[in-house]
Amino acid sequence: AGFFISRCIIVGDEKEEIKEAVSNALKKSEIVFITGGLGPTSDDVTRDAIAEMLQRKLFFSDAIWQKICERFYRRGIKEIPEINKRQAYIIEGAEVIENTVGTAPGMILKEAGKTLLLLPGPPAELTPMVEEWAKTLKDTSEAEIKVYRFGISGLPESSVEEKIHSFFSEKGIKYTILASPQLIEILIASRGDFKDIHIVEGFLRECFSENYLGIDPPALPVLIGNLLKEKGLKIAIAESCTGGLVGKILTDTPGSSDYFQGSFVVYSNILKRRILGVPKTVLKKYGAVSEECALYMAKGAKKKGKADISISITGIAGPSGGSKEKPVGLVYIGIGLPKNKFHIHKFIFPGNRERIRERTAYQALELLRKYLI
Amino acid sequence: AGFFISRCIIVGDEKEEIKEAVSNALKKSEIVFITGGLGPTSDDVTRDAIAEMLQRKLFFSDAIWQKICERFYRRGIKEIPEINKRQAYIIEGAEVIENTVGTAPGMILKEAGKTLLLLPGPPAELTPMVEEWAKTLKDTSEAEIKVYRFGISGLPESSVEEKIHSFFSEKGIKYTILASPQLIEILIASRGDFKDIHIVEGFLRECFSENYLGIDPPALPVLIGNLLKEKGLKIAIAESCTGGLVGKILTDTPGSSDYFQGSFVVYSNILKRRILGVPKTVLKKYGAVSEECALYMAKGAKKKGKADISISITGIAGPSGGSKEKPVGLVYIGIGLPKNKFHIHKFIFPGNRERIRERTAYQALELLRKYLI
Repeated sequence: AGFFISRCIIVGDEKEEIKEAVSNALKKSEIVFITGGLGPTSDDVTRDAIAEMLQRKLFFSDAIWQKICERFYRRGIKEIPEINKRQAYIIEGAEVIENTVGTAPGMILKEAGKTLLLLPGPPAELTPMVEEWAKTLKDTSEAEIKVYRFGISGLPESSVEEKIHSFFSEKGIKYTILASPQLIEILIASRGDFKDIHIVEGFLRECFSENYLGIDPPALPVLIGNLLKEKGLKIAIAESCTGGLVGKILTDTPGSSDYFQGSFVVYSNILKRRILGVPKTVLKKYGAVSEECALYMAKGAKKKGKADISISITGIAGPSGGSKEKPVGLVYIGIGLPKNKFHIHKFIFPGNRERIRERTAYQALELLRKYLI
Repeated sequence: AGFFISRCIIVGDEKEEIKEAVSNALKKSEIVFITGGLGPTSDDVTRDAIAEMLQRKLFFSDAIWQKICERFYRRGIKEIPEINKRQAYIIEGAEVIENTVGTAPGMILKEAGKTLLLLPGPPAELTPMVEEWAKTLKDTSEAEIKVYRFGISGLPESSVEEKIHSFFSEKGIKYTILASPQLIEILIASRGDFKDIHIVEGFLRECFSENYLGIDPPALPVLIGNLLKEKGLKIAIAESCTGGLVGKILTDTPGSSDYFQGSFVVYSNILKRRILGVPKTVLKKYGAVSEECALYMAKGAKKKGKADISISITGIAGPSGGSKEKPVGLVYIGIGLPKNKFHIHKFIFPGNRERIRERTAYQALELLRKYLI
């Protein structure tokens, strides 16, 4: 089993546009996913458009209306807006997929041997529905498509490509590189098991050593959480320019309370002093964005956060506040380790405010990972 | 001037797919934006695909190569990967758009009276390039398309729709509703000035009173920042289950140091006690997720954060940790105001961990907004 994605088309809330796009997609593909436009409001026209396109009727389902009402009651809402009734209409012949997260149910439709899936737009709603549906798929004669993701951290995309290109070309292995602020992924798709997996792994490990994260590596915050749990260490953060982003990323992982004590977002200098004990003289002499301040922040976070490990971050995220000596993008990251060891790293990140903050957060986590392995 | 977006097509890194999608789009539209696939790696094939489709040659540009090298030098990288040379190739007849954020330059191509724009994929890179290009557009005879965004906060999409539907139907005004965790937007597009703007504004103000945010309202964190600046108030946050998200959102806005003191991400109970002074007896008797704990957190944040205003958040983001009395999604939000006033609000949010945390953060900001206006 397994399918290749041929393309993805986005159209506006116009019935005719939706009908044309879906009927074209049906000509080219076995399965068509249609997402969004199942909401209660009058611009949600997908349900009607698909019914028209397939020339099928819409039926009001009492059972679905009951479920929608229960969802509102649970949230303490007694007067259910009348327009939510639109969401209880089902296309003739459809199999309903229950929506456990939101109100709009999904539908599976068969037409001339092909499958259409009507799904709500919010990813949190449609993901579990697609997973539920995928379980019902029978294996076909073809071998399963498997996608192997090899993770590389802490290097720019072009350096990764430069190092791997000739190896993969010689072996005739097709690959895709995906870059994100977290990591670089080398993707290899194969029908059935990928036979050269050990050769590729060996090559990548030799080539990237500690930057090679393995196959299907967990996300960086999960990796760090696992390392901290293994070693029985607790972490606390001191953040300035990232404003809480590092704490947010670390607590994206359920169960992070096992190792995450907290984060001191000391945006103002007064809190850097009062909460973390950065000396007034340090702030005066070197400024808040300095190696010295990062060091005191890392020390303060460890002590006040009752932690074994700390990360400190101070920098200039911009767009204003930069100078010739301290340009926008200048960031100091401190890492506090057991036995009173502290390491401060200096970076100058390109990009806008959002990008600088994001890169800073992931760079801090990547630095910590290297100290922990 | 002004253009309607007809559709958006996403295809894989396959030359033939790209060529087919772009040549189809050219038949239907005046302007085609092509984004992504201009990177240095071998799966970046868009440049080659478009050159083939238009039957034009590719030229190596010394001037662009120079700029790419300078970008690397500024980042302290001396050995520039050879593969970045791919990014210095320009399609015959193209006008180059400079990329001030990344390495890949953009191109404007004219073909049979139509315009193609080749742009890099990262939004941070392509947005300024499109804005630069848009400035060069000459006015046509048609009136400009203007989009009016009316903001409504703190209400679900279906309630908003229910309240406005008959008004807009009667007036014959076409609108779209956009829902995000931050706010509901009613969008009205018009060729030239929208004449009924005052009637619509009057209606929405009467209908939604303090929930009506006005036309093109700033984002919620900006609105709050403006209110705090106007009143000369400083804010500090105490976060538990959001892990730093509220601080992150408030500091997305440049200049937030004018009013944002910091955030105490007290994820562990020991930090709730030691940093914010939540009494041990409160944690023991009522638990960390309680009205009482939220109150002490709001008090502690105000005091320790040297602030006039505070927000406190404690809840169960899940997926585990819930019970019958305290289900996943239960959140207490505290608001600390001047003159020692504190208000605690209880919520039960549906959805997964990510959604609960996001809704909690924006609900806290929305609550604060109402107390500040």
